[in-house]
Amino acid sequence: MAGSSFGTIFRITTFGESHGKAIGVTVDGCPAGLPLSESLIQPYLDRRAPGQSKFSTPRKEGDAVEILSGVFEGKTTGTPIMMMVHNQNQQSKDYSEIASYYRPGHADYCFDQKYGFRDYRGGGRSSGRETIGRVAAGAIADLLLKSMGITVTAYAKSIGPIICETYDFSQIEQNPLRMPDANAFSKAEDYLVECMEKGDSAGGIIECIIRGVPAGIGDPVFEKLDANLAKAIFSIGAVKGFEIGDGFAVANMLGSENNDAFVIDPQNGSVTKSTNHAGGILGGISDGTPIIFRAAVKPTPSISRPQQTVNRDHEEITVSIKGRHDPIIVPRAVPVVEAMTCLTLIDAILLQKALTADL
Amino acid sequence: MAGSSFGTIFRITTFGESHGKAIGVTVDGCPAGLPLSESLIQPYLDRRAPGQSKFSTPRKEGDAVEILSGVFEGKTTGTPIMMMVHNQNQQSKDYSEIASYYRPGHADYCFDQKYGFRDYRGGGRSSGRETIGRVAAGAIADLLLKSMGITVTAYAKSIGPIICETYDFSQIEQNPLRMPDANAFSKAEDYLVECMEKGDSAGGIIECIIRGVPAGIGDPVFEKLDANLAKAIFSIGAVKGFEIGDGFAVANMLGSENNDAFVIDPQNGSVTKSTNHAGGILGGISDGTPIIFRAAVKPTPSISRPQQTVNRDHEEITVSIKGRHDPIIVPRAVPVVEAMTCLTLIDAILLQKALTADL
Amino acid sequence: MAGSSFGTIFRITTFGESHGKAIGVTVDGCPAGLPLSESLIQPYLDRRAPGQSKFSTPRKEGDAVEILSGVFEGKTTGTPIMMMVHNQNQQSKDYSEIASYYRPGHADYCFDQKYGFRDYRGGGRSSGRETIGRVAAGAIADLLLKSMGITVTAYAKSIGPIICETYDFSQIEQNPLRMPDANAFSKAEDYLVECMEKGDSAGGIIECIIRGVPAGIGDPVFEKLDANLAKAIFSIGAVKGFEIGDGFAVANMLGSENNDAFVIDPQNGSVTKSTNHAGGILGGISDGTPIIFRAAVKPTPSISRPQQTVNRDHEEITVSIKGRHDPIIVPRAVPVVEAMTCLTLIDAILLQKALTADL
Amino acid sequence: MAGSSFGTIFRITTFGESHGKAIGVTVDGCPAGLPLSESLIQPYLDRRAPGQSKFSTPRKEGDAVEILSGVFEGKTTGTPIMMMVHNQNQQSKDYSEIASYYRPGHADYCFDQKYGFRDYRGGGRSSGRETIGRVAAGAIADLLLKSMGITVTAYAKSIGPIICETYDFSQIEQNPLRMPDANAFSKAEDYLVECMEKGDSAGGIIECIIRGVPAGIGDPVFEKLDANLAKAIFSIGAVKGFEIGDGFAVANMLGSENNDAFVIDPQNGSVTKSTNHAGGILGGISDGTPIIFRAAVKPTPSISRPQQTVNRDHEEITVSIKGRHDPIIVPRAVPVVEAMTCLTLIDAILLQKALTADL
Repeated sequence: MAGSSFGTIFRITTFGESHGKAIGVTVDGCPAGLPLSESLIQPYLDRRAPGQSKFSTPRKEGDAVEILSGVFEGKTTGTPIMMMVHNQNQQSKDYSEIASYYRPGHADYCFDQKYGFRDYRGGGRSSGRETIGRVAAGAIADLLLKSMGITVTAYAKSIGPIICETYDFSQIEQNPLRMPDANAFSKAEDYLVECMEKGDSAGGIIECIIRGVPAGIGDPVFEKLDANLAKAIFSIGAVKGFEIGDGFAVANMLGSENNDAFVIDPQNGSVTKSTNHAGGILGGISDGTPIIFRAAVKPTPSISRPQQTVNRDHEEITVSIKGRHDPIIVPRAVPVVEAMTCLTLIDAILLQKALTADL
Repeated sequence: MAGSSFGTIFRITTFGESHGKAIGVTVDGCPAGLPLSESLIQPYLDRRAPGQSKFSTPRKEGDAVEILSGVFEGKTTGTPIMMMVHNQNQQSKDYSEIASYYRPGHADYCFDQKYGFRDYRGGGRSSGRETIGRVAAGAIADLLLKSMGITVTAYAKSIGPIICETYDFSQIEQNPLRMPDANAFSKAEDYLVECMEKGDSAGGIIECIIRGVPAGIGDPVFEKLDANLAKAIFSIGAVKGFEIGDGFAVANMLGSENNDAFVIDPQNGSVTKSTNHAGGILGGISDGTPIIFRAAVKPTPSISRPQQTVNRDHEEITVSIKGRHDPIIVPRAVPVVEAMTCLTLIDAILLQKALTADL
Repeated sequence: MAGSSFGTIFRITTFGESHGKAIGVTVDGCPAGLPLSESLIQPYLDRRAPGQSKFSTPRKEGDAVEILSGVFEGKTTGTPIMMMVHNQNQQSKDYSEIASYYRPGHADYCFDQKYGFRDYRGGGRSSGRETIGRVAAGAIADLLLKSMGITVTAYAKSIGPIICETYDFSQIEQNPLRMPDANAFSKAEDYLVECMEKGDSAGGIIECIIRGVPAGIGDPVFEKLDANLAKAIFSIGAVKGFEIGDGFAVANMLGSENNDAFVIDPQNGSVTKSTNHAGGILGGISDGTPIIFRAAVKPTPSISRPQQTVNRDHEEITVSIKGRHDPIIVPRAVPVVEAMTCLTLIDAILLQKALTADL
Repeated sequence: MAGSSFGTIFRITTFGESHGKAIGVTVDGCPAGLPLSESLIQPYLDRRAPGQSKFSTPRKEGDAVEILSGVFEGKTTGTPIMMMVHNQNQQSKDYSEIASYYRPGHADYCFDQKYGFRDYRGGGRSSGRETIGRVAAGAIADLLLKSMGITVTAYAKSIGPIICETYDFSQIEQNPLRMPDANAFSKAEDYLVECMEKGDSAGGIIECIIRGVPAGIGDPVFEKLDANLAKAIFSIGAVKGFEIGDGFAVANMLGSENNDAFVIDPQNGSVTKSTNHAGGILGGISDGTPIIFRAAVKPTPSISRPQQTVNRDHEEITVSIKGRHDPIIVPRAVPVVEAMTCLTLIDAILLQKALTADL
C-alpha cells in the first residue's frame, strides 16, 4: 500500500531497502528559494550514521548524500527534491540462513504473511537504513523551521535503568549516547558494556523539546498537532510508547495539579502559562510554550544470545543472530526523532498559512 | 484546515459543535450490503452518553441518531452514510462569562490564536460532543469487523491511583466506570467522590484489546498499524500518552526479555508467539496475536476549584468553572477509544485487500 | 470507495440520494471569519432548482438550505460547515418498474455491477440532486473568490444546433436557457419544444470565463490547474468533453497561430498576452489572463420515446421512461459548472498560499 | 506544492528537470510478486525517446532506466520501486538567452510568477522529459493490467488537417507518427515537412482504446473514471481538450441518438450495448464495453519563426527559438497517454478491490 509518504503540503516519499542499490527520498512541496546543497544535508546524515562509537555497528558506510533534482543555482526551485545515498555493501554476505527463519522481535514473519515473500537481506525495507531518507528530508524541514526561529532538540533521557538527572544540552553531542548528563552517560556506558558482554541489548527513552512554535498550529479534531507527532514518532521502528507533557503521569494527577494557569508574561505582556504540564499543546493546537514529548525505544531485537523461534518450514529452532549489531538503538534514533518532528511541524505550519485568509 | 476527516478507504468526516444545531458524521467508503439501521447504531451512542451515573454530567441529552443517506432497504448502498444527532440545548445558557476568559487546560486560547475568534458555547468544536460522530461511524466499522471475526474491547485499567488487579471482562459494562475489576471499581468510586467534594477531577488509563486481526495488516514505514492507532487515539481530547505491548516499560528491558519467541501453536500448527511483549504488532504489521495498547487520559480540566488564568483583555483573573462537569473523562472515553480503534483497523484491512493481487 | 470528497485544503464531502431523507455537504477547511448565512447560500441553490421554466421538471421542491454547523455569530469559525436540504418527495411514487430494468444512458447497470444492488428511486446517488451539495459548497467558494476579486461566469454557448452569436452577459439570467444571446435563445426555445413533442431531448455546450485569477496558480505536473478543472467539470454527470482556450481546434493550428505573444499592458506596465489561445493557463499554471473553458453536455438520457434495453433477468425489452424529465440538462448544469470551478480555484489558491514562504 | 504524485493506492511520485542530474519516479503501492526488471521497462521508454525520426529532436539521449529499489529476486516486493534515468547533457549549452525572456506558449512567465525564479535549462520541470518517470511507472501499471486481460492502445488519429480514415492497429508502430492509417501517414509526413520548412509546428489528436475493463470500475460522484482519465490526460503538457465516446458531438445529438441500447450478447448471454456513444463509461462507472477517448494536442510551442514576447526586464522583443525541436508532439505523447491511462485504471481497479467485501 502507498505507505511510504508522509505529510500533506510538505510531502516526502522514501524508497530503498537495506541492501538494495540505493536509499533515498523525494521531497515534494518545499517552498522555492531555500538555499540548499549536499553540504547542508550531509551533517544530518552523519549524525545517524553507524560506526560512531563502540555502541554502533562498526561497518563504515560512508553514506554520502546526492541531490539529484529540485535545486538550481544553490536554491530550491519549488519542484521535487530527490536525495539519494548509494548502498555499498549490497552483495557482501550470505543471507541464506536468515532467509530461512523468522527473527524474534523483527517483522520477518509479518512480511511473509503480508507480501508472500520478503527481501531478507539486512531487514530489507524494515531496516534502520530506510531512515536515511527521512533524515535527509528532515534536514530541509529543519532549515525551513530555523528560518522561522523554531528549534527541535532531542536526546537520550534514559538508557536502560540509567536516567539523566541534569540537562546540559551542550553535552548532547559530546557523548556517543546523546545524553545531556555526562554523569549518567558514564553509568550508561558501563551498563551497555555489560549488556554486550552478555550478548544482549538495551532500550531507553528519547525526549524532544521544540521551541519557538507560535500558538495556533494544529487542528482541533483528527489532525491534532500531538496526534500527528504521535504518528510520526511511532512510525520509527522500535518505538513502543509516546507521551506529551506529563504523559502517563496525568493518569494519577488531579485536575488542579494538571491544569496550567494562563498568566501574562511580564517581559512582553503576552499570554503564556506558569507551568507546562500540557507539553505546549492544548486541544491539539500549539499554545505558544515549548512542546515536550518522550518516546520509549525497545532494545535492539538482534541479539547474539540464543533464542527460540520457527523457520519457514514451521519447525521450532534455536537461533543466535550473527554479526555485530548496535546494543542500543536510542542514540542513532535521536536524529530520526528530530527529523520526524521537523517534518510534522513544517507540514502543520504550511497548512496553517493556507488558511490565514484576510477576510 | 481540512482536519475533520479520518481514514483513506473507509473515510469519515465529522461536523458540529457542542451547542450548534447538530452533530454528526459522513462515512464514505463503506462496502455495500451491510445490514444497517438506527437501532444498530444507537446502543453505541448510548454507551458514550452523559447522565449514566453520578460521575457523569446529569443533563439528559437523549441523543437519538438519524441515518439520512446511504442505506436502502436495510442495507448500506456503498454511497456516503450521513448520521446526525440534533442538539437540544442550543441556547439554554448565558455564555458571556466563559467567552471572556481562557479556561485552563482547554483550547480556548489556542482557538482564538488560530481562528481569531471562537464558538465559546460549551467548548464549541473541541467539545466531547464531537465524538458522537466518531462513535456512530465506529459502530459501522465495528459491525464490519465483527463480520470478519475481529473484536475490540476497551476498559478503564486505572482511575487515579486505583489500578485493576483482576480482569473479568464481563464486569466492564456492570459498573459506570467500565472497570473489569469490581473491587477496584469500588475503591475508585470512593476516590472520585472525594475528588468531587474537593471540586477537583481525576485521570486514568484506558486499555484496549483487539482479537482476531490476521497477520499482515499495516505497512512497514509511515503507515505502521501502531502509528495509525497512536494518531487515532491521540486525536481523542485529553489523551496524553499512548503505548503498545510493554510500552514505556521496554526502556528498561533487555532484548532477551522483550523479544517474543515464535512458536508453533500445538492446536492448529500455525505460527504464533509464546509471549506478547510486542502487543501484536512487529515492524508496523500485525503478527496475528492480540493487539494490546493503553492510553493515558488527563483529569477533566473543568473544575470548580478556583484557578488562575487571563481574560481576553489580557488581565490575570481567578476563575471557578461553573456547572456540573464529569469528574473523570475515562469511562465515557472508553467507547470513543473503541470507535477510533475500529476505524483505524477497518481502513487498514480494506487497504490491504486492494493489494492482494493474484499475480 | 471514498469518492464523495473534492479538494485538498478546502475539502467538501457530499452525501444523499435523490429520494433519501436529505441531500447535503460538509465543507472542511473554509477560513474563519467569512460572513455566512442561509440567505447568502439560497440564491445559488435557487438557480439550479427545478421548475424554473417549461424546460425543467415542474415538480416544485422548495429546496431550503439549512446550515447546521461551522457558523457562529454570522461568520465561519474555521470548523466544518454542514449544509443540508431535506427531500420532500421520498415515498411519493412506485419505483418497482424502474427497479426492474436498466435505463439506457444511465448508470443503473453499472451500479448493479459495482455494488450488487442499487437505490433505484430517481437515480439514487447518481441523481442530479447530488449537485445540491456541490452548489451550496460552491457558493461559499464563490464568496471567498469574490472577496479576492475573482469572478466565475458560465452560460449556455449552444443548445443542440443553435449556437450563440453574440455575448451579452446581462442576458444570461434573463432567459431560462442561460444563453447570452437573446436571438439564439429564441431559436433554441423552438428547437426544444420540437424535441419535447417528439419525446426526445437535446444536448449543448457550456462555456465558463474566470476573471481575476493572478498568475502563478496551479502546479506544473499532475496538479495542473487545467487538469483539476477538467476533473471537476467531468465529475458532473452528462459531461462528455472538456476543452480550454482554443481546445480541440488546436489540433489543426500551426504553432505560430496557437502561441500567444507576451506583451506589456500599456495601462499598467504589467506582462500580459495579445491573444488568449491558451485560455489563461500555460504549463498548468495561470498566466494572469482570463481562463476560458467549455464543456459538452449530452442530451438528457431519460426520454419517453421507446428504447431497447434489458431487464435484471437479462431479457431484452422495450421501455418508455415515464414522468416529466428536463428535455435539456444544460441550463441547470450552468450553476453546477460554476460551483465546481469555484471549488477548484479556491483550493488551488489556498494551496498556493501555503507555499509562499518568505525565505 | 506537493503536486508531483498521482494515484491513491498505486501512487507514483516523479522528480527531475530536463537538465538536472536525473529524472525518475517512485512507485508506491505496487502489489508484491509481479515479475519486473529493467528489460521489461526499457521498451516503454524507448517508444517515447527522441531521435526516432526526422520529426523528433535528433539528440540521442540513450535513456537507460535503472531500478534502484523494490525488486528482489526478479519480483516486486510490495515496497516502493524507484526507477531513474541519468541526464547526459546537463551542462552542454548556454542558456543565458533563454533565461532572459518568456517563450510564447511555454510556462516560463508562470514559473517566475509562481516561484520567483526558474530552472530555465530546457524547460526545467515543465520539460517533456518529466514524462520519463510517468512512462516507467505506467509500464508497471500496464504489466499489471495485462495480467488482468486489459489492454490500452493509443495512436495519432489526426496530424494537423490529416485525419485517419482506416484503423489498422498493426500499422501504429510501423510509422514514426503512430498513425493506424498508412495512407494518412504519408500525407501527414508531407504536411509536417512543409511545417518544418516554414519553421513552424503542428498539432493533432490522440485517440485511446481500452479493452477488457470489467463493469463496475469508477465511482459515481467526484472520482468518476472518466473524470480521473480527464485529469490524467490533461496533466500531460500540450493537451488542450479531452472527450470520451462521442465527446463534443453529443452537444448536437438527440437523446434517442446518443443513448446506447443495452442488449444481450448472443455469444455469452451477458449484458452489453449495441452501440457505444458513451465510450464505455456511464455515470462515472465502466459498463464493460471498450473505453474510448480522445485528446487534442497543441502544436509544439518552440518554433524558429520570429515571435513577439517580453523579457524579464519587461521589454517587448522579437525572438526566434533556437535549436532543433520536434515539429509535432503527438507521436511522442502517444506512449505518455497510454502510461497515464494505465496509471488511472490500475488505481481505480485496486481501489475497487478494497470495497468488494463479502458481507
